[in-house]
Amino acid sequence: MNQPPGLNQLCVHTITTKPWPLDRAVDAYQAEGIQGISVWQDAVLQSGLKQAARTLEASQLSVVSYVRGGFFPHTSAGQRQKAIDHNKLMLEEAATIGAPLLVLVCGSDPAQSLSISRDQIREGLENILPYAESLGVKLGIEPLHPMYADTRSAINNLKTANDMADQLDHPYCGVVVDVYHLWWDPDLEAEIMRCGRDGHLFSYHICDWKVPTADMLNDRGLMGEGCIPLKKIRSWVERAGFIGFHEVEIFSNTHWQRDQKEFLRDVVHAFQHHS
Amino acid sequence: MNQPPGLNQLCVHTITTKPWPLDRAVDAYQAEGIQGISVWQDAVLQSGLKQAARTLEASQLSVVSYVRGGFFPHTSAGQRQKAIDHNKLMLEEAATIGAPLLVLVCGSDPAQSLSISRDQIREGLENILPYAESLGVKLGIEPLHPMYADTRSAINNLKTANDMADQLDHPYCGVVVDVYHLWWDPDLEAEIMRCGRDGHLFSYHICDWKVPTADMLNDRGLMGEGCIPLKKIRSWVERAGFIGFHEVEIFSNTHWQRDQKEFLRDVVHAFQHHS
Repeated sequence: MNQPPGLNQLCVHTITTKPWPLDRAVDAYQAEGIQGISVWQDAVLQSGLKQAARTLEASQLSVVSYVRGGFFPHTSAGQRQKAIDHNKLMLEEAATIGAPLLVLVCGSDPAQSLSISRDQIREGLENILPYAESLGVKLGIEPLHPMYADTRSAINNLKTANDMADQLDHPYCGVVVDVYHLWWDPDLEAEIMRCGRDGHLFSYHICDWKVPTADMLNDRGLMGEGCIPLKKIRSWVERAGFIGFHEVEIFSNTHWQRDQKEFLRDVVHAFQHHS
Repeated sequence: MNQPPGLNQLCVHTITTKPWPLDRAVDAYQAEGIQGISVWQDAVLQSGLKQAARTLEASQLSVVSYVRGGFFPHTSAGQRQKAIDHNKLMLEEAATIGAPLLVLVCGSDPAQSLSISRDQIREGLENILPYAESLGVKLGIEPLHPMYADTRSAINNLKTANDMADQLDHPYCGVVVDVYHLWWDPDLEAEIMRCGRDGHLFSYHICDWKVPTADMLNDRGLMGEGCIPLKKIRSWVERAGFIGFHEVEIFSNTHWQRDQKEFLRDVVHAFQHHS
């Protein structure tokens, strides 16, 4: 098997330590030797955009991504325009905090077909791409697990995300590989190689799939707590040429209830031993 | 849109009306003009195999399938042999109650990779196919939703099921299309056409995906209660040449708590208006 990842490749999403405000998370991540942070909008809104930008600027952390834009599809044109406006705002926020990437949970409206939702996602992306480029913030299409196809994303495997990035064919549009959403897919290795080859593999998210999973949203596992072949998938991502951060993104009622400092140490240990 | 389905195409799975013993279900289905029944093993064991066979033989219902064999993958060879023995027993039970098809939830072992589990599924199928043929009972590979990839099935889309049926290339081996598991897949129409063309489309299961879904196992919806494009998928299945029963298979804590006679009337209504 491949060499263990270096601590300098570890990035943590603020949602992983949700109980902490941004400044607390920044201090704690640095104390553990973590070098990357992906920032969720709720953490920014809580401290205020300017203060968040100052906190991050003053830190030694690399801001890896801003999370999460998207949610383009709606049956009403007015709602679709609102989504586009909201994404432009999020691009500005991303630029303000120095994030080079906005992660997109693309959205889905159960009142219409997935194929119409996919068309509306593509239209939304086409609409905001010039603005994203002008701000120097890339867009990452994150395919979501098929169990979220009803309301969260009509893009449910890496092939669909890669197809869309190919169609849009823009240096500011790529894909996000999250093991939680994609581990089950027999085509995953081939599609990781494809987005690597095309220069579309923008980021890599890790956690684990618990057996059993108690909650469809907030029961993600720490690496090693579940059944995802993390080392194998990492070897594919590395073979595809990816050299960016490995981002730990865990939504977990169980872990959020723990002492967050202890949990963060477990994140670092799990990253080094099970990912 | 296509014509509504005829009542003579409706089949109900005994699990749909789980609170009822088999004889009660048989009487109630007939009273509603339903012509097909798919029988779960728990209903057979509860009444005893011989009594179940007599009850079904004495009824006017067509026995459409016996549910559910499979669960082939295990890290231990001894467990794999046990699974094969169990499937042979289920084939005998299927033959005894006059079921022409054994539906397979193929299994997955989270202690090994999905690709090894898939190999073990293929080996299991190869092993039992001659016995299935000798008994006149076909085998239906049912791809399961990716949220069940950890322990229930390593076959998580119709393409993987079709590939396996193609590889096994046996007139007694085909696939089961269940809308709950497959509705999200952008390749669904193409793969339905493929198994129809190859003569592998053995059965068609319907229900709905509720928004939101409260439980990963037992919160399926009645047709029309959710977001699955049932009429569109039915049009694909019909265009693929399928002329068999449309089988209503609903696991629902909510509906199981209701008066089952009222619920069954709702099933018939939903079948005629929303499927």
